[in-house]
Amino acid sequence: MVLELRNRALLLDRDDELAHCRNRFRLPDGLIYLCGNSLGAMPAGIAERLARSVTDEWAEGLVKSWNTAGWIELPRVTASHLARLIGADPECVAVTDSTSVNLFKVLSAALALNPGRRRIASERDNFPTDLYIADGLVRFLGGRHELVLVDHPDEIGPALDDRTAVLMLSHVNYRTGRLLDMKRITELAHAAGALAIWDLAHSAGAIEVDVTGCNVDFAVGCGYKYLNGGPGAPAFLYVSHRHAAQASQPLSGWFSHREPFAFDPAYAPAAGIARFHTGTPPILSMVALNEALNVWRDVDMAAIRRKSVALTDLFIEAVERLCPQLRLVTPRDPQLRGSQICLSTPEGGHAIMRALIAHGVVGDFRAPDILRFGFAPLYNRFEEAVRAAEILADILERETWRQPEFQIRERVT
Amino acid sequence: MVLELRNRALLLDRDDELAHCRNRFRLPDGLIYLCGNSLGAMPAGIAERLARSVTDEWAEGLVKSWNTAGWIELPRVTASHLARLIGADPECVAVTDSTSVNLFKVLSAALALNPGRRRIASERDNFPTDLYIADGLVRFLGGRHELVLVDHPDEIGPALDDRTAVLMLSHVNYRTGRLLDMKRITELAHAAGALAIWDLAHSAGAIEVDVTGCNVDFAVGCGYKYLNGGPGAPAFLYVSHRHAAQASQPLSGWFSHREPFAFDPAYAPAAGIARFHTGTPPILSMVALNEALNVWRDVDMAAIRRKSVALTDLFIEAVERLCPQLRLVTPRDPQLRGSQICLSTPEGGHAIMRALIAHGVVGDFRAPDILRFGFAPLYNRFEEAVRAAEILADILERETWRQPEFQIRERVT
Repeated sequence: MVLELRNRALLLDRDDELAHCRNRFRLPDGLIYLCGNSLGAMPAGIAERLARSVTDEWAEGLVKSWNTAGWIELPRVTASHLARLIGADPECVAVTDSTSVNLFKVLSAALALNPGRRRIASERDNFPTDLYIADGLVRFLGGRHELVLVDHPDEIGPALDDRTAVLMLSHVNYRTGRLLDMKRITELAHAAGALAIWDLAHSAGAIEVDVTGCNVDFAVGCGYKYLNGGPGAPAFLYVSHRHAAQASQPLSGWFSHREPFAFDPAYAPAAGIARFHTGTPPILSMVALNEALNVWRDVDMAAIRRKSVALTDLFIEAVERLCPQLRLVTPRDPQLRGSQICLSTPEGGHAIMRALIAHGVVGDFRAPDILRFGFAPLYNRFEEAVRAAEILADILERETWRQPEFQIRERVT
Repeated sequence: MVLELRNRALLLDRDDELAHCRNRFRLPDGLIYLCGNSLGAMPAGIAERLARSVTDEWAEGLVKSWNTAGWIELPRVTASHLARLIGADPECVAVTDSTSVNLFKVLSAALALNPGRRRIASERDNFPTDLYIADGLVRFLGGRHELVLVDHPDEIGPALDDRTAVLMLSHVNYRTGRLLDMKRITELAHAAGALAIWDLAHSAGAIEVDVTGCNVDFAVGCGYKYLNGGPGAPAFLYVSHRHAAQASQPLSGWFSHREPFAFDPAYAPAAGIARFHTGTPPILSMVALNEALNVWRDVDMAAIRRKSVALTDLFIEAVERLCPQLRLVTPRDPQLRGSQICLSTPEGGHAIMRALIAHGVVGDFRAPDILRFGFAPLYNRFEEAVRAAEILADILERETWRQPEFQIRERVT
């Protein structure tokens, strides 16, 4: 049984149209890294590029590097590379700040565009920071607005009415890997007169995303997961062309000004997406993200999706055959999931993950009972999917995870 | 005359108690860098530290580096190193986001602590992004608040009354180098029942700052000027102990949560200063700032101030003797200025600065007529102050700046 899975994986790896992309990353020998949905692996060019930025640009070029090394243009250039990965016009994307800060901006902008309405609709199971930001905004606006949370995707449609200003959802759920139908749900929002904001943190770089085709109003996303921009990489945001001229956001720092270097005491927003910037961008982190996006240069996002589905299909099959103790939390239908597989365990989740990591398979654990495995189509191999399932099966069978060293409770990000 | 100045400079350099600190930076040979008030020079350990963070921590350690490499603690550790430089308790400082975003947070917090009042007082000549952020906040809160700007520091006191919620000022003016009396003005604000927010962008690392002794309520500041954290380095904010328990800010992302990794859908602010964080911090930029703060390890801030005053005194004297065409904009009294000298010129300011840069003296130009020279006591030498004045005098005397290559209009940050 295992042999058949292994052989199939080898054939899939042999025929993998993205196999050559693995060499664009530096991964530790022998490690099966299935945590690119938390922190993406390091693209090979990063160390050299950062060394150059530090030594040639900062130390030697000093302040003039804002112009001569293109630092001032770097957020815009980085956004233009990122745009294709989410199906956006480059002029609609900004790379700036963190996902949380960016969500605050687009949520503020959306509420201002729909002033007669007071409700923000979302899912209770949305990524917590998204809910915290909405909560912070509601409190800040004096409690006149309201955050309405549903417990199941089927309740999203019924929750939308003429009180709903904005629907704010994650495209792929961080805990379950469930993928929402962005196009259909955005239509529901628009039919109710609401605007739609999508958090693409777990979908950008993992599956095909088409914010333009789905008629999305605003989106935000993360640079350090499937985009491999490095720990805490700058995040991005998307604003549809149709809102570009009217949209405004309250974090109107000098990098959002029409002429930041005119030092005019009066504020005037930049004409385009630049009005969604705020302060001076963190150039070293931006350089890493910019370099990281090079790995996508010739990659077709449809190929990413095909490989993601095949990888996760194979992993599901292997786990279900080898680890019957575990329950698949992620939808089995590939149309309903992103590029991560979540499994629940009746006991010992955290210890199982610690044992797995000790045995060279890196996923992560989400309380109370979920083992998460992210599959990054650019660098994960089919052979890894099968081997990870084998190692997991072995840990469960031998109850390795009951060993005292795996019982320590410790924060895992 | 020049010889006497040069000799004096050599003696001052010989006796400089901070002379050994220059070797802690990598500066291009022969360059006189007087732009540390815009982008600080690179501390020598940065390249090696970043290379380690990228290669060992990110590429090899991957996601576990949040714990094993201390990434998760890095903002707190960095804040604790920074605190001393501004006279703050480490528990009152957060290193996070940009100065603009941080100002939005503390301004929001201050308004919420003074709910019966609707005015934000500031100076028209404050750094523009500070005004833009206040403007964005006022617009966002529905126009019930008002930004009141004064044209001269003497008008600050009279502008404060029982309508003033917050007084928001820059400690050192970015364009003129003028230093405000933080203690006295904070007292004026408190006497009027207002809270005081200080922007330390041009004072932290440049002069002695004592936010505790001055009874400051909130402060923000910049990591990439005199703190040498690298282009767009993370910024900082300060919240007085007396506001710690009540203060709240609307950008309440997961890094401000009491238990970010509990993934609780309900928001609960962290107990201390951590509630002023927002999203995932940009680790590579944070690593650079953290490393950069090592250069201060044994540095007495009183010595910084002594050297800053001596350096700028010497530069003023040299410029006034050698360049009579220029007018000193910065106050002559060292008690009234920070660590930068601003000179106005009747004509050709931008071209003069371009010619200066071409001749190895880096300052910057601020429209319409100001030549700015920042003096970083950790790495600038007295000999450089005199040589810069000599080169400037030569450019003015020969009218080198009228050469066509210096007439090109180009953005200088």
